Amino acid sequence: MALIVQKYGGTSVGTLERIRNVAQKALSRQRQGDQVVVVVSAMAGETNRLIKLALDLTELPDLREYDALISTGENVSVALLAIAIQSIGGKARSLVANQIPIFSEGVYKDGRIKKIGTQKIRKLLNHGSIVVAAGFQAVDQEGNIHTLGRGGSDTTAVALAAALNADLCEIYTDVDGVYTADPNICPDARKLDKISYDEVMEMASAGAKVLMIRSVELAKNYNVKLAVLSSLMDLPGTLVVKGDKEMEKTVVSGVAYDKNECKITVSRVPDQPGVAATVFKSLGDAHIIVDMIVQNVSEKGYTDLTFTVRKEDMARAKKLADVASRKLAAGEIKIDPNVAKVSIVGVGMRSAAGVAGRMFETLGQAGINIQAISTSEIKVSCLIDAKYTELAVRELHSAFNLAKAPAGSKPKKRAKN
Amino acid sequence: MALIVQKYGGTSVGTLERIRNVAQKALSRQRQGDQVVVVVSAMAGETNRLIKLALDLTELPDLREYDALISTGENVSVALLAIAIQSIGGKARSLVANQIPIFSEGVYKDGRIKKIGTQKIRKLLNHGSIVVAAGFQAVDQEGNIHTLGRGGSDTTAVALAAALNADLCEIYTDVDGVYTADPNICPDARKLDKISYDEVMEMASAGAKVLMIRSVELAKNYNVKLAVLSSLMDLPGTLVVKGDKEMEKTVVSGVAYDKNECKITVSRVPDQPGVAATVFKSLGDAHIIVDMIVQNVSEKGYTDLTFTVRKEDMARAKKLADVASRKLAAGEIKIDPNVAKVSIVGVGMRSAAGVAGRMFETLGQAGINIQAISTSEIKVSCLIDAKYTELAVRELHSAFNLAKAPAGSKPKKRAKN
Repeated sequence: MALIVQKYGGTSVGTLERIRNVAQKALSRQRQGDQVVVVVSAMAGETNRLIKLALDLTELPDLREYDALISTGENVSVALLAIAIQSIGGKARSLVANQIPIFSEGVYKDGRIKKIGTQKIRKLLNHGSIVVAAGFQAVDQEGNIHTLGRGGSDTTAVALAAALNADLCEIYTDVDGVYTADPNICPDARKLDKISYDEVMEMASAGAKVLMIRSVELAKNYNVKLAVLSSLMDLPGTLVVKGDKEMEKTVVSGVAYDKNECKITVSRVPDQPGVAATVFKSLGDAHIIVDMIVQNVSEKGYTDLTFTVRKEDMARAKKLADVASRKLAAGEIKIDPNVAKVSIVGVGMRSAAGVAGRMFETLGQAGINIQAISTSEIKVSCLIDAKYTELAVRELHSAFNLAKAPAGSKPKKRAKN
Repeated sequence: MALIVQKYGGTSVGTLERIRNVAQKALSRQRQGDQVVVVVSAMAGETNRLIKLALDLTELPDLREYDALISTGENVSVALLAIAIQSIGGKARSLVANQIPIFSEGVYKDGRIKKIGTQKIRKLLNHGSIVVAAGFQAVDQEGNIHTLGRGGSDTTAVALAAALNADLCEIYTDVDGVYTADPNICPDARKLDKISYDEVMEMASAGAKVLMIRSVELAKNYNVKLAVLSSLMDLPGTLVVKGDKEMEKTVVSGVAYDKNECKITVSRVPDQPGVAATVFKSLGDAHIIVDMIVQNVSEKGYTDLTFTVRKEDMARAKKLADVASRKLAAGEIKIDPNVAKVSIVGVGMRSAAGVAGRMFETLGQAGINIQAISTSEIKVSCLIDAKYTELAVRELHSAFNLAKAPAGSKPKKRAKN
């Protein structure tokens, strides 16, 4: 008998019919002999409806009340799912954050899970119930509700799996696993049987939307075995685990892209110590995350400073760069939103030489100019003109032979849906 | 400085605009120097939406999950009202049942409040906050949510007022007080300045829809001063207090009616001991409330048994009466839904003679036949043909001089709205 934590997102519980489908999946799993905890998000659209109500009252709602409000969507979906499971003959019990309890610390809107009580859940599981737990919410020591930020229900699922020492945490989503590239633009993309925590985090930060970084980080820290699965189809998904020797035979595991960055260039910056700090400190103070940074070779004591930020931060970043530029007596600010970041990710890169070179060469041969480069131990990212995104992904996918399964593993075709 | 508990129903918080209006009323009251606790229901329509979701999943949802589900409407409205108060410059904090805490005992769907913690509320009030408390919900010792049945938010408000030893509990509603009769059918109905707990309870059981009996009972037991007020207009309402000498000068305080009963007659019942028990025990076991009961004079060892039940219980009651009739070898069952109960209510009846007689006479002079009669210490009810309801109310209102304020009190005209 295994203990399984399943997580279903808002789309998977978006209608009563889909809630019935989730009830069926959870109950089948339990009838196979496993103990099952299901974590659910609010029904699709519900959290946005609640946010709109708050914002219609005031532009800046008090965050304590905002969290109290927007966490109610999960209270509805857990009760409905429990009722749905019971209506097909199962035993189920819904629990919200204060009932479990899940304790948080830190700020509103972005709470961090501190401690989870497992006694009540274990008791219910041992009595044959499926436990339906509310995602996205936690309570502080005073009983105030904190939400857990973007991807908060994934975080709840992983944290519950860690606290319960679960055998597996299954994340059900509208894709059926992690692919070597986005199958919508790369027809021969292949679903991966396994991927490492580090790779999936790099893929997420490189723009792949399968899992939120924070939940994977938590899974890695507590060694929670994760599976990414389709909530609509009954197919094997992708297992996210610690990197192992076998995985490292593959140099590159996947190609990711991100069209949500924009490039900002501050021209004619005096090439002196402390100059970059002037620019980036003000961005950091404004909680704007800077991703890639390039400083050109100095010419006659001046240089151009190029960096990328998320598109939603573009206007604020431009304003701050303007201020910094005037302070430094630098030149004009150029903004280019028509850029994309393409990345190759793989734990095998750690020990393989020439991977970055092959990437640059591939892009060059396709006539794609590289505007900026950033690397990590297991990732290389290039900023390119956005119009070449799909071409770049396909060329890289093919150059690194990703359509072919590595020796020793069975190849898998993507399911038609 | 007084401590005031205000309660606003679903209609009063049915839109963001109305929530803003409630925020304004609560804040003005606080700025007059009082401490204010506001109890709110779910936004109008929300509880019904949630009930429909549950019933669309299954006809008989588990009551623990049903309560968890339908109580979420209040979680939304308290947070929104707190945000609305803050947006106009006030301090506010929303609290749901487990945060206050309000503990319940008894069954789901019809929980009874057992204990209320007042420490957190007092602390917030002393810090200058308006406390916005969720109506209709309580938690048991295990933290399961119980709803409080029909009119549950009124019960919450009165219970909070009792626990906090509040100076006044204001019930805001879509009428602006308690009238001597329904102003929609009796144009010269007069708003009462004061009414006793007992009278308002009898008025409620006689069909007047101003307050739920349970909350008035609670107010009476804990001597909580109640005021019934309009949430939309700024008018003096009706105060509900202990009966006093002055009130008893008036024999009849009001006329009420109820069209939601139906008459069932079991004919040719053997006139023997235990016969009535056979019929009414089965109805009681099915939780069907029988209101009026009449047993005709026996004729040759047989009698007709007539009683009334709520219209929603009609079909079930008929089925049970059929079974009982077969068992007793009685005659056919006659159902008449076209009946109405008209009642006169007043604490002064206790010491006045001839009140019932005057009522029967008044109805008789208007050509209205009385089908059944029931009385209490401060009420007389007559069952009549439903088509005479409005006529009967107007005739009784006039026969007992209710349009005229009793000596010593100022007469009030109904506000135009």
